Amino acid sequence: VQYCLINKITTKPDKRDEVIRIMLESGKPFDTNDNCLLYMVSKDTQSENVIWVLDVWNSYEAHEEAMAKSDMRQFVKEAIPLLQHRPEQFIIQPVGGKPGK
Amino acid sequence: VQYCLINKITTKPDKRDEVIRIMLESGKPFDTNDNCLLYMVSKDTQSENVIWVLDVWNSYEAHEEAMAKSDMRQFVKEAIPLLQHRPEQFIIQPVGGKPGK
Repeated sequence: VQYCLINKITTKPDKRDEVIRIMLESGKPFDTNDNCLLYMVSKDTQSENVIWVLDVWNSYEAHEEAMAKSDMRQFVKEAIPLLQHRPEQFIIQPVGGKPGK
Repeated sequence: VQYCLINKITTKPDKRDEVIRIMLESGKPFDTNDNCLLYMVSKDTQSENVIWVLDVWNSYEAHEEAMAKSDMRQFVKEAIPLLQHRPEQFIIQPVGGKPGK
């Protein structure tokens, strides 16, 4: 079963671009990780301090394993002080629709 | 520029499956609409009345046009009484990451 996440990240004022940079940097290893099927970082167009990150992984375990890497911990440590509060994480289970292309 | 939406839909108790059915039915025409690049209907695994719908369209106009169809209005009319409140819609602008495959 795939493991799909929607992460809503609210940054402190004027820190969104810096957090986006960290999220893109920290996601680079996923490019060569076949267990990561999607990692999409987006700006909210209506709330200037909000970032949305969509993740699709082959499994819960594959995601946990990627998160446990030591460089990931470093990125988290860098990003946390720039956030308004803890990221909100929604674990979702697709039930249908039109697949991406 | 692509037009990407995250819709968070909160249903009245025990109405989620019915609303999911309506969302899937109403999205069927998108299968043959080349302007719709993704239409993914998901259950929230932690909140039992929450549905997330991710949409990616070729343009804002293409989405508006699809929404204006008369059968779409019928589906909206069916779904509204089953919801807790108006859907929350977040318009997002992708800035990078790993593309879906």
